[in-house]
Amino acid sequence: MDQNRNRNDRPRAREVGVLVGVGTPGPHNAITDVRGVRVGHATLIRGDGPLRVGHGPVRTGVTAILPPRNNWYDEPVEAAHFVFNGAGTTAGLSLIDEFGRIETPIGLTNSLSVGTVYEGIVRYMVERIFAPRGSVPWFNPVVGETSDAYLNDMGGLHVRPEHAVQAIDAATDGPVAEGVVGGGTGMSAFGFKGGIGTASRVLEIAGERATVGVLVQSNFGGRLTICGVPMDELQTPPPPPPTSGSSIMMIVATDLPLSNRLLFRVCKRATFGLARTGSSGGHGSGDYVIGFSTTYRTSDAMPAIRETLARQEGVIDEAFRAVAEATEEAILNSLFKAERIVGRDGHTREALPIDRVLEILDRRGVRRTSPTP
Amino acid sequence: MDQNRNRNDRPRAREVGVLVGVGTPGPHNAITDVRGVRVGHATLIRGDGPLRVGHGPVRTGVTAILPPRNNWYDEPVEAAHFVFNGAGTTAGLSLIDEFGRIETPIGLTNSLSVGTVYEGIVRYMVERIFAPRGSVPWFNPVVGETSDAYLNDMGGLHVRPEHAVQAIDAATDGPVAEGVVGGGTGMSAFGFKGGIGTASRVLEIAGERATVGVLVQSNFGGRLTICGVPMDELQTPPPPPPTSGSSIMMIVATDLPLSNRLLFRVCKRATFGLARTGSSGGHGSGDYVIGFSTTYRTSDAMPAIRETLARQEGVIDEAFRAVAEATEEAILNSLFKAERIVGRDGHTREALPIDRVLEILDRRGVRRTSPTP
Amino acid sequence: MDQNRNRNDRPRAREVGVLVGVGTPGPHNAITDVRGVRVGHATLIRGDGPLRVGHGPVRTGVTAILPPRNNWYDEPVEAAHFVFNGAGTTAGLSLIDEFGRIETPIGLTNSLSVGTVYEGIVRYMVERIFAPRGSVPWFNPVVGETSDAYLNDMGGLHVRPEHAVQAIDAATDGPVAEGVVGGGTGMSAFGFKGGIGTASRVLEIAGERATVGVLVQSNFGGRLTICGVPMDELQTPPPPPPTSGSSIMMIVATDLPLSNRLLFRVCKRATFGLARTGSSGGHGSGDYVIGFSTTYRTSDAMPAIRETLARQEGVIDEAFRAVAEATEEAILNSLFKAERIVGRDGHTREALPIDRVLEILDRRGVRRTSPTP
Amino acid sequence: MDQNRNRNDRPRAREVGVLVGVGTPGPHNAITDVRGVRVGHATLIRGDGPLRVGHGPVRTGVTAILPPRNNWYDEPVEAAHFVFNGAGTTAGLSLIDEFGRIETPIGLTNSLSVGTVYEGIVRYMVERIFAPRGSVPWFNPVVGETSDAYLNDMGGLHVRPEHAVQAIDAATDGPVAEGVVGGGTGMSAFGFKGGIGTASRVLEIAGERATVGVLVQSNFGGRLTICGVPMDELQTPPPPPPTSGSSIMMIVATDLPLSNRLLFRVCKRATFGLARTGSSGGHGSGDYVIGFSTTYRTSDAMPAIRETLARQEGVIDEAFRAVAEATEEAILNSLFKAERIVGRDGHTREALPIDRVLEILDRRGVRRTSPTP
Repeated sequence: MDQNRNRNDRPRAREVGVLVGVGTPGPHNAITDVRGVRVGHATLIRGDGPLRVGHGPVRTGVTAILPPRNNWYDEPVEAAHFVFNGAGTTAGLSLIDEFGRIETPIGLTNSLSVGTVYEGIVRYMVERIFAPRGSVPWFNPVVGETSDAYLNDMGGLHVRPEHAVQAIDAATDGPVAEGVVGGGTGMSAFGFKGGIGTASRVLEIAGERATVGVLVQSNFGGRLTICGVPMDELQTPPPPPPTSGSSIMMIVATDLPLSNRLLFRVCKRATFGLARTGSSGGHGSGDYVIGFSTTYRTSDAMPAIRETLARQEGVIDEAFRAVAEATEEAILNSLFKAERIVGRDGHTREALPIDRVLEILDRRGVRRTSPTP
Repeated sequence: MDQNRNRNDRPRAREVGVLVGVGTPGPHNAITDVRGVRVGHATLIRGDGPLRVGHGPVRTGVTAILPPRNNWYDEPVEAAHFVFNGAGTTAGLSLIDEFGRIETPIGLTNSLSVGTVYEGIVRYMVERIFAPRGSVPWFNPVVGETSDAYLNDMGGLHVRPEHAVQAIDAATDGPVAEGVVGGGTGMSAFGFKGGIGTASRVLEIAGERATVGVLVQSNFGGRLTICGVPMDELQTPPPPPPTSGSSIMMIVATDLPLSNRLLFRVCKRATFGLARTGSSGGHGSGDYVIGFSTTYRTSDAMPAIRETLARQEGVIDEAFRAVAEATEEAILNSLFKAERIVGRDGHTREALPIDRVLEILDRRGVRRTSPTP
Repeated sequence: MDQNRNRNDRPRAREVGVLVGVGTPGPHNAITDVRGVRVGHATLIRGDGPLRVGHGPVRTGVTAILPPRNNWYDEPVEAAHFVFNGAGTTAGLSLIDEFGRIETPIGLTNSLSVGTVYEGIVRYMVERIFAPRGSVPWFNPVVGETSDAYLNDMGGLHVRPEHAVQAIDAATDGPVAEGVVGGGTGMSAFGFKGGIGTASRVLEIAGERATVGVLVQSNFGGRLTICGVPMDELQTPPPPPPTSGSSIMMIVATDLPLSNRLLFRVCKRATFGLARTGSSGGHGSGDYVIGFSTTYRTSDAMPAIRETLARQEGVIDEAFRAVAEATEEAILNSLFKAERIVGRDGHTREALPIDRVLEILDRRGVRRTSPTP
Repeated sequence: MDQNRNRNDRPRAREVGVLVGVGTPGPHNAITDVRGVRVGHATLIRGDGPLRVGHGPVRTGVTAILPPRNNWYDEPVEAAHFVFNGAGTTAGLSLIDEFGRIETPIGLTNSLSVGTVYEGIVRYMVERIFAPRGSVPWFNPVVGETSDAYLNDMGGLHVRPEHAVQAIDAATDGPVAEGVVGGGTGMSAFGFKGGIGTASRVLEIAGERATVGVLVQSNFGGRLTICGVPMDELQTPPPPPPTSGSSIMMIVATDLPLSNRLLFRVCKRATFGLARTGSSGGHGSGDYVIGFSTTYRTSDAMPAIRETLARQEGVIDEAFRAVAEATEEAILNSLFKAERIVGRDGHTREALPIDRVLEILDRRGVRRTSPTP
């Protein structure tokens, strides 16, 4: 399987006319619409049958989101984060607060493999950037996680440091593989198979165009709601309440020249998109938003936006709306694209039944566009 | 006008069958369903015509939410708060963090009158509690606000300390006046008249019943969404983007025995209800949640819930769902109950056209119950 | 009494050779060394004898710190704050976080008069800035406090809005009155009379000179330590443990072009100066730091520093050292300059016995310079 | 070398009469004075000469602090943390905030090995606790770090997961090895060799005795100050300003029954001890405090303290004083006990010259007790 171009023929939400909000997506409707941002996956699927800790079955992986350029330490991006619910083990957050920067790729994986992916990112940075110079400083890998223990032998630590390196090496711009891929391989949402999803919005401020892109690793619960319509009949009998393994990582990228303070504000609004999908914000759901700006530190891009933001910060409302919409749509995409999977002990997650979703939306009079290719 | 029992015949959302979520409200569907909590209003409506700063027209007031009992300083409630967007001037938050307590009534008013209501609460506490003892300590009034500058001569500071005292003295349990009353008198939401609204949910944990109640002072903007259905046609032409005067105060009360840490978690989930009404989380919208527990510090109520929370904190999910639903419904009630008002310079806010709302919901197949009395 | 130039002949710490740290003060060794910053006081001293709530005796006041220029709303300063211990009622903090700005003068007063000074700042802003335009927006007064209940009829609310206006109108650059003046009139520290104190440090980065200035309103307890030497014998018998009325407000101004994020970091280091005076960081001591940059938003001052900070943020260490030293020295000045005062019920705070302090320092071999004029 | 009982004959501070503050240490003057707390080290010292990334020289290790009992997941300790300066990569903080708990041993190591120690803790927990049950949930390892890049081949990742397991397995109560040991092996402070240090204070509230213990991994800079006396002559020529590799981890344990909120308050006061050692709070110094209570969740110990804290929270002042003193003394012990070490590229850190320290203190008249055994 080409892990970075999953070619399953399940449609994305927008491809079957399911529109979130009123904004316009970028060309790929993906986080990679933010120029310079790349995404790569390493997917591990191996074995079947009963769980034997350390032996499998394996349904897991790593997704890497790369800020622009290749020397993230010397050319970091401005960054911020918001923890809606800290029921998780995401690493690397305090430096984001203190220095307002991200200086490595961001890794997403399963909860117990955070340390391993951390080591993988360290190895990548040491080998490619620092060892050739003969001097290795400390730096701050950022690694997010959700738990795939329902499908995967999570305690077996099948993700190794080299899988993080593979995901980084595999990263490309353009379309992003979604669903059962990378860190999303073993994840579930609303009782269905979830995983990786992405979306974007373009906006205009002061005559300059900018993009907000979101990538999620969805693994949470609640009352699935699509375009405002609860999908109760798809969740009958009701799925079990979210267990402590449910969570969502939301990665926000933008080429808007936003400082740490403004990025923090943008990150908070991602939770509005989360709320609108019906998330219950469950106790055990680690709900994290990490955002970065590709231009704030390293270019003079968008001078009119910079000047406008300094004078009249309220124009940030465009970004607030964009991030909420893109997050909601990214979550839908993670469900629309994810295929049925059988994991350890025969645990099964069905794919979201798109036909029934559309039937419900039609019945409820939700405006849909003609399917797009 | 009896300010605490506004008898306008506009229905509350639930009275015309508009149901938010799946939970069950308490007897009054109000924050006062939490035993011991009282609400009082002082409403100031005076004058018409052009704004003359200091002279009117006046469309403003104070709403007071009283924790149980009468000596809040010696018998404080456990408390927490969450600032979703700190574009406001709410006073008294840092003590809530540090000591985990609220030790006075909570006042809601217009943005520039925070200081005056602060003084009013001080006067009330000094006269009723401390002066008789001959000793006055420092204490921490909590005062929230939203801006009524569109309708009211806010710069005229027509709210005086005695109005805060009046609102406290007027406080009662039972039904709560909503809409154009107290601190909500001059407020707007989604381009319509907004103001005070309230709702509640009862829940059961470990065989014990508890209540979560929410009271809002709504004054914000976005894409009005009721039960998941955008009311775009009611907002045509689209209302102006939220100005810096938009905001919402959300006060959460519960008799669940929740510590400061757990209350903070509950407060965060109120923003999910806010998101679902279509709030844009606008730049200039001060969106604050303040929550308190009436039992944590001062009784042994609900021993089974205490014990269960200590062992298995995830049961808090019941409260998370409840607060999101009650917040969403409280916001709807603030719109449903608010009547048309004309303020300074002829500025007008129309009442939400409930008939059209219901027509849209019916057309869109939203489940409605038979109207309740 | 000219409240803004208290001419008592008690020396400041440095004038008798007591040097804090290794840095160099600005010309006035005051917060006003930061160009454009002004300070004004309104001091209320009236009556003697037993406390009669509402009648006195009165030992209180207001101190106003004015950011540069006169229209703080349209030309705000970049700002941040750090709450070391939130046992207080300081108003206006959440907007500092959210917008990174201060848009009014900062008032300091007693704990129960925060609301009144808030109203005073509102009146000042409305009358001088907004009413002439015919339009009054919401804005965010910043008011800090400590409790003078030991000496003052704090519950009597003798500070009125006009005293805040007076303090603002009285504000000047140049030397700052210290000790028993303005908001510091009724305050105590380490069992001695405390109150207002100030100090500054100049520093150089990338060839450009900048200034960090601190003004404190000291009212806290602990083991008084001067230049590392505990003054145990002056605190014999030991003063009572800090009561809930003890606190300190620390206002930091700088012309360094620092963003909200960097100012927050600078504010945190003020607590290192506080620690070194022997503060116990007591439970009931509201210890707040509020900082602002006079240049970040409104000028292109210090281009070399801006550029250096962006490239190599570690040069901020100069500001970290400066703020710790200036805070420690400002606290000492608040003690050195404060005269003995008798307040309500004959409550007395003695002045720090400077001769004995110097004798102890000499005995302990602390380096002192020759007294400076 | 028995890594857990380093028998070097350098004295601890108190053993040569250097007393910090006025409180009384516990029997071992160590974090292990808190009943049930254990500490273990794995020390890696290997090779000499020039740095060859991946080959050494190696001067690093792991220190493990174990909360009481052996199943930390099912019997977690109540916890909190305070980040004074987030210039580091400590993992596991957000769950401490959200759930108020620590559910694994705490590991301390070098900055780039956080991921590896994280994996080591996961392996330990999976093998000893979860695999035997056949079910592995997600959980949250807590791993702190400082940078030993000056002495150690940090980029070579010589710490392996099994070293974390070794440190956990080696953990004992009783005296704690200090200085060049475990995570402190390659660390420096104030230009001298630093590393692991510990101290404790006993206190009494409401007739019940309790203990506050602190363990630090010191690696920071500033103006070394001992008992208030700057050691300028020992730092001549002045050591280079703290580089981005300087940091300090402060672990606080107590048997006081403190909630997350109170532990957070206690953690903040640890920075007062840090300040008094002369720390500059440098830009690149990751200064973290992590605290836990051994009794809050799992016993009814100290009923009188529980009751007193609920009624009169101010008694927490005893713990505030204790943690500041113990932190200051733990830092001194990390210097007093650390021996000279030569690391990669011949980089050398001298031991603190204790004789000269004592000579300076004597000359400056600092009270010293007779040496204790």
